[in-house]
Amino acid sequence: MSEIGKKIWAIPGSNIPLEQTGPEPDFTSHDSLWMLNATDEDAQVEITIYYADREPVGPYPLEVEARRVRQVRFNDLIDPQAMPLETDYGAVIKASVPIVVQFSTMDTRQAANSRSIVIGYGV
Amino acid sequence: MSEIGKKIWAIPGSNIPLEQTGPEPDFTSHDSLWMLNATDEDAQVEITIYYADREPVGPYPLEVEARRVRQVRFNDLIDPQAMPLETDYGAVIKASVPIVVQFSTMDTRQAANSRSIVIGYGV
Amino acid sequence: MSEIGKKIWAIPGSNIPLEQTGPEPDFTSHDSLWMLNATDEDAQVEITIYYADREPVGPYPLEVEARRVRQVRFNDLIDPQAMPLETDYGAVIKASVPIVVQFSTMDTRQAANSRSIVIGYGV
Amino acid sequence: MSEIGKKIWAIPGSNIPLEQTGPEPDFTSHDSLWMLNATDEDAQVEITIYYADREPVGPYPLEVEARRVRQVRFNDLIDPQAMPLETDYGAVIKASVPIVVQFSTMDTRQAANSRSIVIGYGV
Repeated sequence: MSEIGKKIWAIPGSNIPLEQTGPEPDFTSHDSLWMLNATDEDAQVEITIYYADREPVGPYPLEVEARRVRQVRFNDLIDPQAMPLETDYGAVIKASVPIVVQFSTMDTRQAANSRSIVIGYGV
Repeated sequence: MSEIGKKIWAIPGSNIPLEQTGPEPDFTSHDSLWMLNATDEDAQVEITIYYADREPVGPYPLEVEARRVRQVRFNDLIDPQAMPLETDYGAVIKASVPIVVQFSTMDTRQAANSRSIVIGYGV
Repeated sequence: MSEIGKKIWAIPGSNIPLEQTGPEPDFTSHDSLWMLNATDEDAQVEITIYYADREPVGPYPLEVEARRVRQVRFNDLIDPQAMPLETDYGAVIKASVPIVVQFSTMDTRQAANSRSIVIGYGV
Repeated sequence: MSEIGKKIWAIPGSNIPLEQTGPEPDFTSHDSLWMLNATDEDAQVEITIYYADREPVGPYPLEVEARRVRQVRFNDLIDPQAMPLETDYGAVIKASVPIVVQFSTMDTRQAANSRSIVIGYGV
Protein backbone atom coordinates (compact mmCIF):
# COMPACT_ATOMS: atom_id res chain seq x y z
CA MET A 1 0.00 0.00 0.00
CA SER A 2 2.96 2.33 -0.37
CA GLU A 3 1.62 4.22 -3.41
CA ILE A 4 -1.62 5.71 -2.09
CA GLY A 5 -1.48 9.42 -2.83
CA LYS A 6 0.70 12.12 -4.29
CA LYS A 7 3.78 14.05 -3.16
CA ILE A 8 2.44 17.50 -4.08
CA TRP A 9 -0.97 18.92 -3.17
CA ALA A 10 -2.62 22.31 -3.54
CA ILE A 11 -5.44 24.07 -1.67
CA PRO A 12 -6.47 27.04 -3.80
CA GLY A 13 -7.77 29.30 -1.11
CA SER A 14 -9.56 30.17 2.09
CA ASN A 15 -9.85 32.83 4.74
CA ILE A 16 -10.03 32.13 8.47
CA PRO A 17 -12.73 34.29 10.14
CA LEU A 18 -11.84 36.13 13.33
CA GLU A 19 -15.33 35.93 14.78
CA GLN A 20 -16.76 32.83 16.36
CA THR A 21 -19.72 31.53 18.35
CA GLY A 22 -19.74 28.60 20.76
CA PRO A 23 -17.20 27.05 23.14
CA GLU A 24 -13.49 26.89 22.30
CA PRO A 25 -11.57 25.12 20.90
CA ASP A 26 -14.13 22.96 19.04
CA PHE A 27 -16.16 25.89 17.78
CA THR A 28 -13.29 28.24 17.09
CA SER A 29 -13.54 29.19 13.41
CA HIS A 30 -10.66 27.31 11.84
CA ASP A 31 -9.28 25.69 8.71
CA SER A 32 -7.66 22.27 8.96
CA LEU A 33 -5.41 20.18 6.81
CA TRP A 34 -5.83 16.42 7.10
CA MET A 35 -2.97 14.22 5.89
CA LEU A 36 -3.06 10.44 5.57
CA ASN A 37 0.24 8.61 5.25
CA ALA A 38 -0.58 5.01 4.36
CA THR A 39 3.03 4.17 3.55
CA ASP A 40 5.55 2.46 5.85
CA GLU A 41 7.86 5.48 5.89
CA ASP A 42 7.52 8.71 7.87
CA ALA A 43 6.57 11.63 5.62
CA GLN A 44 8.53 14.88 5.87
CA VAL A 45 6.02 17.54 4.88
CA GLU A 46 6.58 21.18 3.93
CA ILE A 47 3.70 23.64 3.70
CA THR A 48 4.04 26.90 1.78
CA ILE A 49 1.38 29.58 2.23
CA TYR A 50 0.46 31.85 -0.69
CA TYR A 51 -1.16 35.25 -0.20
CA ALA A 52 -3.03 37.74 -2.36
CA ASP A 53 -0.65 40.64 -1.98
CA ARG A 54 2.76 39.44 -0.86
CA GLU A 55 5.37 36.76 -1.38
CA PRO A 56 4.70 33.19 -0.19
CA VAL A 57 5.76 32.25 3.35
CA GLY A 58 7.33 28.93 4.28
CA PRO A 59 8.18 26.21 4.39
CA TYR A 60 6.37 25.17 7.56
CA PRO A 61 7.92 21.75 8.32
CA LEU A 62 5.84 18.90 9.72
CA GLU A 63 6.07 15.14 10.06
CA VAL A 64 3.33 12.62 9.40
CA GLU A 65 4.46 9.29 10.75
CA ALA A 66 4.17 6.05 8.79
CA ARG A 67 0.66 4.54 8.87
CA ARG A 68 -0.82 7.58 10.59
CA VAL A 69 -3.30 10.39 9.95
CA ARG A 70 -2.57 13.91 11.15
CA GLN A 71 -4.77 16.97 11.44
CA VAL A 72 -3.13 20.39 11.47
CA ARG A 73 -5.02 23.61 12.10
CA PHE A 74 -3.73 26.45 9.95
CA ASN A 75 -4.32 28.67 13.00
CA ASP A 76 -1.49 26.72 14.68
CA LEU A 77 1.13 27.34 11.99
CA ILE A 78 3.50 29.68 13.85
CA ASP A 79 7.01 29.22 12.52
CA PRO A 80 8.44 30.84 10.35
CA GLN A 81 5.48 33.24 10.77
CA ALA A 82 2.06 33.07 12.47
CA MET A 83 -0.73 32.95 9.92
CA PRO A 84 -2.89 36.08 9.89
CA LEU A 85 -6.66 35.72 10.28
CA GLU A 86 -9.15 37.37 7.91
CA THR A 87 -6.63 37.14 5.08
CA ASP A 88 -7.05 35.28 1.78
CA TYR A 89 -4.54 32.48 1.44
CA GLY A 90 -3.78 29.27 -0.44
CA ALA A 91 -1.39 26.42 0.30
CA VAL A 92 0.96 24.01 -1.42
CA ILE A 93 1.92 20.86 0.45
CA LYS A 94 5.00 18.83 -0.50
CA ALA A 95 5.76 15.45 1.09
CA SER A 96 8.72 13.08 0.91
CA VAL A 97 6.41 10.07 0.33
CA PRO A 98 2.91 9.87 -1.21
CA ILE A 99 0.16 11.10 1.10
CA VAL A 100 -3.50 12.05 0.69
CA VAL A 101 -4.56 15.57 1.68
CA GLN A 102 -7.95 16.95 2.65
CA PHE A 103 -8.95 20.45 3.61
CA SER A 104 -11.77 21.32 5.97
CA THR A 105 -13.18 24.57 7.14
CA MET A 106 -15.31 25.33 10.19
CA ASP A 107 -17.11 28.65 10.11
CA THR A 108 -18.73 29.56 13.43
CA ARG A 109 -19.42 33.25 12.92
CA GLN A 110 -23.12 32.59 13.26
CA ALA A 111 -24.78 30.44 15.90
CA ALA A 112 -25.06 27.55 13.46
CA ASN A 113 -21.65 26.34 12.45
CA SER A 114 -20.96 25.53 8.83
CA ARG A 115 -18.49 22.77 8.11
CA SER A 116 -17.18 21.99 4.65
CA ILE A 117 -14.61 19.45 3.46
CA VAL A 118 -12.75 18.97 0.21
CA ILE A 119 -10.02 16.65 -1.04
CA GLY A 120 -7.03 18.74 -2.11
CA TYR A 121 -5.77 18.91 -5.66
CA GLY A 122 -3.13 16.22 -6.08
CA VAL A 123 -0.46 16.99 -8.68
CA MET B 1 -20.31 -0.45 -17.49
CA SER B 2 -17.96 -2.71 -15.58
CA GLU B 3 -15.10 -0.19 -15.34
CA ILE B 4 -16.71 2.69 -13.44
CA GLY B 5 -14.44 3.43 -10.50
CA LYS B 6 -11.27 2.33 -8.77
CA LYS B 7 -10.27 -0.55 -6.51
CA ILE B 8 -8.49 1.59 -3.89
CA TRP B 9 -9.84 4.73 -2.25
CA ALA B 10 -8.65 6.98 0.57
CA ILE B 11 -10.45 9.33 2.96
CA PRO B 12 -7.78 11.48 4.58
CA GLY B 13 -9.49 12.26 7.84
CA SER B 14 -12.39 13.08 10.06
CA ASN B 15 -13.55 12.99 13.65
CA ILE B 16 -17.00 11.88 14.78
CA PRO B 17 -18.42 14.25 17.43
CA LEU B 18 -19.93 12.75 20.56
CA GLU B 19 -22.47 15.52 21.04
CA GLN B 20 -25.62 15.83 19.03
CA THR B 21 -28.89 17.76 18.76
CA GLY B 22 -32.17 16.50 17.31
CA PRO B 23 -33.88 13.13 17.08
CA GLU B 24 -31.93 9.89 16.57
CA PRO B 25 -30.88 8.23 14.36
CA ASP B 26 -31.18 10.81 11.56
CA PHE B 27 -29.60 13.60 13.55
CA THR B 28 -26.98 11.56 15.33
CA SER B 29 -23.61 13.10 14.45
CA HIS B 30 -22.09 10.58 12.08
CA ASP B 31 -19.71 9.97 9.20
CA SER B 32 -20.82 7.80 6.32
CA LEU B 33 -19.14 5.99 3.46
CA TRP B 34 -21.16 5.64 0.27
CA MET B 35 -20.10 2.96 -2.19
CA LEU B 36 -21.51 2.49 -5.70
CA ASN B 37 -20.85 -0.82 -7.42
CA ALA B 38 -21.97 -0.40 -11.05
CA THR B 39 -20.38 -3.68 -12.12
CA ASP B 40 -22.13 -7.05 -12.53
CA GLU B 41 -20.01 -8.69 -9.83
CA ASP B 42 -20.36 -8.41 -6.04
CA ALA B 43 -17.57 -6.31 -4.53
CA GLN B 44 -15.67 -7.64 -1.53
CA VAL B 45 -14.59 -4.54 0.35
CA GLU B 46 -12.04 -4.13 3.13
CA ILE B 47 -11.81 -0.93 5.17
CA THR B 48 -8.70 -0.08 7.17
CA ILE B 49 -8.86 2.73 9.72
CA TYR B 50 -5.80 4.88 10.35
CA TYR B 51 -5.29 6.86 13.58
CA ALA B 52 -3.11 9.71 14.75
CA ASP B 53 -1.32 7.88 17.51
CA ARG B 54 -1.53 4.13 17.03
CA GLU B 55 -1.33 1.39 14.43
CA PRO B 56 -4.10 1.01 11.82
CA VAL B 57 -7.06 -1.25 12.65
CA GLY B 58 -8.69 -3.60 10.17
CA PRO B 59 -9.66 -4.90 7.81
CA TYR B 60 -13.39 -4.37 8.35
CA PRO B 61 -14.94 -6.65 5.71
CA LEU B 62 -18.09 -5.65 3.81
CA GLU B 63 -19.90 -6.62 0.64
CA VAL B 64 -21.43 -4.30 -1.92
CA GLU B 65 -23.59 -6.35 -4.23
CA ALA B 66 -23.49 -6.04 -8.01
CA ARG B 67 -25.48 -3.06 -9.34
CA ARG B 68 -26.10 -1.68 -5.84
CA VAL B 69 -25.24 1.32 -3.70
CA ARG B 70 -24.43 0.90 -0.03
CA GLN B 71 -24.13 3.39 2.80
CA VAL B 72 -22.10 2.44 5.85
CA ARG B 73 -21.90 4.57 8.98
CA PHE B 74 -18.43 4.53 10.50
CA ASN B 75 -20.19 4.55 13.88
CA ASP B 76 -21.39 1.03 12.99
CA LEU B 77 -17.97 -0.47 12.30
CA ILE B 78 -17.65 -2.86 15.24
CA ASP B 79 -15.51 -5.81 14.25
CA PRO B 80 -12.50 -6.19 14.68
CA GLN B 81 -12.87 -3.13 16.98
CA ALA B 82 -15.56 -0.50 17.60
CA MET B 83 -14.50 2.88 16.27
CA PRO B 84 -13.90 5.45 18.99
CA LEU B 85 -15.74 8.80 18.83
CA GLU B 86 -13.95 12.15 19.15
CA THR B 87 -10.81 10.65 17.65
CA ASP B 88 -9.02 11.73 14.47
CA TYR B 89 -9.05 9.00 11.86
CA GLY B 90 -8.61 8.31 8.16
CA ALA B 91 -9.62 5.35 6.01
CA VAL B 92 -8.38 3.27 3.10
CA ILE B 93 -10.97 1.24 1.19
CA LYS B 94 -9.96 -1.69 -1.03
CA ALA B 95 -12.45 -3.48 -3.28
CA SER B 96 -12.29 -6.62 -5.43
CA VAL B 97 -13.94 -4.79 -8.36
CA PRO B 98 -14.00 -1.08 -9.31
CA ILE B 99 -16.37 0.98 -7.16
CA VAL B 100 -16.93 4.71 -6.56
CA VAL B 101 -16.59 6.00 -3.00
CA GLN B 102 -18.02 9.10 -1.36
CA PHE B 103 -17.65 10.34 2.18
CA SER B 104 -20.24 12.39 4.03
CA THR B 105 -20.30 13.91 7.44
CA MET B 106 -23.26 15.10 9.51
CA ASP B 107 -22.39 17.36 12.41
CA THR B 108 -25.31 18.01 14.75
CA ARG B 109 -23.53 19.45 17.76
CA GLN B 110 -25.41 22.69 17.30
CA ALA B 111 -29.13 23.05 16.61
CA ALA B 112 -28.45 23.58 12.93
CA ASN B 113 -26.93 20.49 11.43
CA SER B 114 -24.05 20.81 9.00
CA ARG B 115 -23.76 18.25 6.24
CA SER B 116 -20.78 17.96 3.95
CA ILE B 117 -19.98 15.50 1.19
CA VAL B 118 -16.84 14.70 -0.76
CA ILE B 119 -15.84 12.13 -3.36
CA GLY B 120 -12.98 10.03 -1.98
CA TYR B 121 -9.50 9.99 -3.47
CA GLY B 122 -9.37 7.19 -6.02
CA VAL B 123 -5.93 5.66 -6.53
CA MET C 1 -13.29 23.87 -26.24
CA SER C 2 -15.03 20.70 -27.35
CA GLU C 3 -13.12 18.39 -24.97
CA ILE C 4 -14.02 19.78 -21.56
CA GLY C 5 -15.33 16.90 -19.50
CA LYS C 6 -16.11 13.20 -19.66
CA LYS C 7 -18.86 11.06 -21.14
CA ILE C 8 -19.46 8.96 -18.00
CA TRP C 9 -19.94 10.26 -14.46
CA ALA C 10 -20.87 8.66 -11.15
CA ILE C 11 -22.47 10.00 -7.97
CA PRO C 12 -21.93 7.38 -5.28
CA GLY C 13 -24.89 8.10 -3.10
CA SER C 14 -27.42 10.24 -1.35
CA ASN C 15 -30.84 10.21 0.25
CA ILE C 16 -33.48 12.89 -0.25
CA PRO C 17 -35.16 13.79 3.07
CA LEU C 18 -38.93 13.98 3.19
CA GLU C 19 -39.03 16.67 5.83
CA GLN C 20 -38.36 20.30 5.14
CA THR C 21 -38.48 23.77 6.68
CA GLY C 22 -39.00 27.07 4.87
CA PRO C 23 -40.89 28.16 1.75
CA GLU C 24 -41.18 25.92 -1.31
CA PRO C 25 -39.70 25.33 -3.79
CA ASP C 26 -36.36 26.93 -2.84
CA PHE C 27 -36.23 25.33 0.59
CA THR C 28 -37.66 21.97 -0.35
CA SER C 29 -35.04 19.38 0.63
CA HIS C 30 -33.64 18.25 -2.70
CA ASP C 31 -30.68 16.81 -4.56
CA SER C 32 -29.63 18.37 -7.85
CA LEU C 33 -27.45 17.37 -10.75
CA TRP C 34 -25.69 20.20 -12.60
CA MET C 35 -24.44 19.51 -16.10
CA LEU C 36 -22.25 21.83 -18.16
CA ASN C 37 -22.02 21.19 -21.89
CA ALA C 38 -19.24 23.43 -23.23
CA THR C 39 -19.20 21.70 -26.63
CA ASP C 40 -20.95 22.87 -29.80
CA GLU C 41 -23.14 19.77 -29.96
CA ASP C 42 -26.28 18.97 -27.96
CA ALA C 43 -25.63 16.25 -25.36
CA GLN C 44 -28.01 13.32 -25.12
CA VAL C 45 -27.82 12.26 -21.48
CA GLU C 46 -29.02 9.09 -19.79
CA ILE C 47 -29.25 8.80 -16.01
CA THR C 48 -29.41 5.41 -14.30
CA ILE C 49 -30.36 5.25 -10.63
CA TYR C 50 -28.84 2.56 -8.39
CA TYR C 51 -30.49 1.43 -5.15
CA ALA C 52 -29.43 -0.48 -2.05
CA ASP C 53 -31.84 -3.34 -2.36
CA ARG C 54 -33.17 -3.65 -5.90
CA GLU C 55 -32.15 -3.48 -9.53
CA PRO C 56 -31.14 -0.14 -11.12
CA VAL C 57 -33.87 1.96 -12.74
CA GLY C 58 -33.41 3.83 -16.01
CA PRO C 59 -32.41 5.27 -18.26
CA TYR C 60 -33.95 8.67 -17.59
CA PRO C 61 -33.29 10.55 -20.84
CA LEU C 62 -32.40 14.25 -20.88
CA GLU C 63 -30.85 16.75 -23.22
CA VAL C 64 -28.29 19.40 -22.39
CA GLU C 65 -28.03 21.77 -25.30
CA ALA C 66 -24.74 22.92 -26.80
CA ARG C 67 -23.04 25.70 -24.79
CA ARG C 68 -25.57 25.45 -21.97
CA VAL C 69 -25.73 24.48 -18.30
CA ARG C 70 -28.69 22.53 -16.95
CA GLN C 71 -29.82 21.79 -13.41
CA VAL C 72 -32.02 18.77 -12.80
CA ARG C 73 -33.61 18.00 -9.45
CA PHE C 74 -33.65 14.27 -8.75
CA ASN C 75 -37.07 14.86 -7.19
CA ASP C 76 -38.29 15.66 -10.72
CA LEU C 77 -37.13 12.40 -12.34
CA ILE C 78 -40.50 10.77 -13.06
CA ASP C 79 -40.19 8.55 -16.11
CA PRO C 80 -39.65 5.55 -16.22
CA GLN C 81 -40.35 5.71 -12.45
CA ALA C 82 -40.68 8.48 -9.86
CA MET C 83 -37.74 8.52 -7.49
CA PRO C 84 -38.65 7.56 -3.93
CA LEU C 85 -37.71 9.90 -1.07
CA GLU C 86 -35.90 8.72 2.07
CA THR C 87 -34.18 5.99 0.06
CA ASP C 88 -30.45 5.50 -0.44
CA TYR C 89 -29.49 5.86 -4.09
CA GLY C 90 -26.56 6.46 -6.43
CA ALA C 91 -26.42 7.58 -10.04
CA VAL C 92 -24.48 6.97 -13.23
CA ILE C 93 -24.69 9.62 -15.95
CA LYS C 94 -23.78 8.85 -19.57
CA ALA C 95 -23.61 11.58 -22.23
CA SER C 96 -23.13 11.55 -26.00
CA VAL C 97 -20.48 14.31 -25.78
CA PRO C 98 -18.13 15.32 -22.94
CA ILE C 99 -19.85 17.23 -20.13
CA VAL C 100 -18.93 18.20 -16.57
CA VAL C 101 -21.20 17.00 -13.76
CA GLN C 102 -21.72 18.37 -10.26
CA PHE C 103 -23.97 17.14 -7.50
CA SER C 104 -25.52 19.34 -4.84
CA THR C 105 -27.71 18.59 -1.90
CA MET C 106 -29.95 20.92 0.08
CA ASP C 107 -31.07 19.60 3.44
CA THR C 108 -33.78 21.73 5.08
CA ARG C 109 -35.01 19.38 7.77
CA GLN C 110 -33.89 21.85 10.40
CA ALA C 111 -34.49 25.62 10.37
CA ALA C 112 -30.97 26.20 9.14
CA ASN C 113 -30.53 24.69 5.72
CA SER C 114 -27.34 22.81 4.90
CA ARG C 115 -26.08 22.97 1.35
CA SER C 116 -23.25 20.83 0.05
CA ILE C 117 -21.74 20.53 -3.41
CA VAL C 118 -19.35 18.07 -5.01
CA ILE C 119 -17.96 17.48 -8.49
CA GLY C 120 -19.00 14.01 -9.69
CA TYR C 121 -16.53 11.23 -10.38
CA GLY C 122 -15.60 11.42 -14.06
CA VAL C 123 -14.62 8.10 -15.61
CA MET D 1 6.95 24.34 -8.79
CA SER D 2 5.86 25.71 -12.13
CA GLU D 3 3.60 22.78 -13.05
CA ILE D 4 1.06 22.79 -10.22
CA GLY D 5 -2.37 22.86 -11.83
CA LYS D 6 -4.11 22.99 -15.17
CA LYS D 7 -4.80 25.65 -17.78
CA ILE D 8 -8.52 24.86 -18.18
CA TRP D 9 -11.05 24.45 -15.38
CA ALA D 10 -14.82 24.00 -15.26
CA ILE D 11 -17.45 24.75 -12.59
CA PRO D 12 -20.62 22.94 -13.64
CA GLY D 13 -23.17 25.15 -12.02
CA SER D 14 -24.57 27.34 -9.32
CA ASN D 15 -27.14 30.04 -8.65
CA ILE D 16 -26.50 33.12 -6.52
CA PRO D 17 -29.47 33.82 -4.21
CA LEU D 18 -30.84 37.34 -4.01
CA GLU D 19 -31.90 37.07 -0.39
CA GLN D 20 -29.51 37.30 2.50
CA THR D 21 -29.33 37.54 6.28
CA GLY D 22 -26.59 39.19 8.36
CA PRO D 23 -24.20 42.10 7.84
CA GLU D 24 -22.73 42.94 4.41
CA PRO D 25 -20.41 42.22 2.72
CA ASP D 26 -19.31 39.09 4.64
CA PHE D 27 -22.79 37.62 4.82
CA THR D 28 -23.97 38.65 1.38
CA SER D 29 -24.97 35.47 -0.42
CA HIS D 30 -22.21 34.98 -2.95
CA ASP D 31 -20.23 32.54 -5.06
CA SER D 32 -16.46 32.84 -5.22
CA LEU D 33 -13.72 31.55 -7.42
CA TRP D 34 -10.35 30.98 -5.78
CA MET D 35 -7.30 30.77 -8.01
CA LEU D 36 -3.80 29.77 -6.92
CA ASN D 37 -0.92 30.60 -9.22
CA ALA D 38 2.15 28.82 -7.84
CA THR D 39 4.22 29.52 -10.94
CA ASP D 40 6.75 32.35 -11.41
CA GLU D 41 4.75 33.91 -14.25
CA ASP D 42 1.62 36.09 -14.05
CA ALA D 43 -1.47 34.20 -15.23
CA GLN D 44 -3.79 35.84 -17.75
CA VAL D 45 -7.18 34.33 -16.97
CA GLU D 46 -10.38 34.38 -19.01
CA ILE D 47 -13.72 33.36 -17.48
CA THR D 48 -16.67 32.40 -19.68
CA ILE D 49 -20.13 32.10 -18.12
CA TYR D 50 -22.60 29.53 -19.42
CA TYR D 51 -26.35 29.86 -18.91
CA ALA D 52 -29.37 27.57 -19.16
CA ASP D 53 -31.22 29.44 -21.86
CA ARG D 54 -28.90 31.71 -23.79
CA GLU D 55 -25.46 31.91 -25.34
CA PRO D 56 -22.34 32.05 -23.12
CA VAL D 57 -21.05 35.46 -22.04
CA GLY D 58 -17.36 36.40 -21.89
CA PRO D 59 -14.54 36.38 -21.67
CA TYR D 60 -14.16 38.20 -18.38
CA PRO D 61 -10.42 38.95 -18.24
CA LEU D 62 -8.47 38.78 -14.98
CA GLU D 63 -4.88 38.51 -13.84
CA VAL D 64 -3.52 36.30 -11.08
CA GLU D 65 0.01 37.40 -10.35
CA ALA D 66 2.93 34.99 -10.02
CA ARG D 67 3.10 33.27 -6.60
CA ARG D 68 -0.26 34.69 -5.52
CA VAL D 69 -3.78 33.53 -4.66
CA ARG D 70 -6.79 35.53 -5.80
CA GLN D 71 -10.44 35.36 -4.79
CA VAL D 72 -13.05 36.69 -7.20
CA ARG D 73 -16.73 37.01 -6.34
CA PHE D 74 -18.93 36.18 -9.30
CA ASN D 75 -21.19 39.00 -8.08
CA ASP D 76 -18.35 41.38 -9.03
CA LEU D 77 -18.02 40.24 -12.66
CA ILE D 78 -19.33 43.31 -14.48
CA ASP D 79 -17.65 43.58 -17.87
CA PRO D 80 -18.69 42.57 -20.57
CA GLN D 81 -21.97 42.07 -18.65
CA ALA D 82 -23.03 42.07 -14.98
CA MET D 83 -23.93 38.58 -13.81
CA PRO D 84 -27.62 38.18 -13.01
CA LEU D 85 -28.64 36.82 -9.60
CA GLU D 86 -31.10 33.96 -9.17
CA THR D 87 -30.02 32.49 -12.50
CA ASP D 88 -28.47 29.06 -13.12
CA TYR D 89 -24.95 29.36 -14.50
CA GLY D 90 -21.72 27.46 -15.02
CA ALA D 91 -18.18 28.66 -15.74
CA VAL D 92 -15.12 27.72 -17.75
CA ILE D 93 -11.80 29.23 -16.68
CA LYS D 94 -8.82 29.38 -19.05
CA ALA D 95 -5.37 30.51 -17.88
CA SER D 96 -2.09 31.23 -19.67
CA VAL D 97 -0.13 29.19 -17.09
CA PRO D 98 -1.20 26.27 -14.85
CA ILE D 99 -3.30 27.34 -11.88
CA VAL D 100 -5.51 25.55 -9.34
CA VAL D 101 -9.16 26.58 -9.09
CA GLN D 102 -11.66 26.22 -6.26
CA PHE D 103 -15.27 27.25 -6.08
CA SER D 104 -17.06 28.26 -2.91
CA THR D 105 -20.61 29.26 -2.21
CA MET D 106 -22.02 31.15 0.75
CA ASP D 107 -25.78 30.91 1.16
CA THR D 108 -27.18 33.30 3.75
CA ARG D 109 -30.87 33.19 2.94
CA GLN D 110 -31.57 31.78 6.38
CA ALA D 111 -30.14 33.00 9.68
CA ALA D 112 -27.58 30.20 9.64
CA ASN D 113 -25.25 30.58 6.72
CA SER D 114 -24.25 27.54 4.72
CA ARG D 115 -20.81 27.49 3.19
CA SER D 116 -19.64 24.88 0.73
CA ILE D 117 -16.38 24.48 -1.15
CA VAL D 118 -15.28 22.33 -4.05
CA ILE D 119 -12.16 21.99 -6.18
CA GLY D 120 -13.05 22.72 -9.82
CA TYR D 121 -12.80 20.17 -12.58
CA GLY D 122 -9.35 20.47 -14.13
CA VAL D 123 -9.14 19.46 -17.78
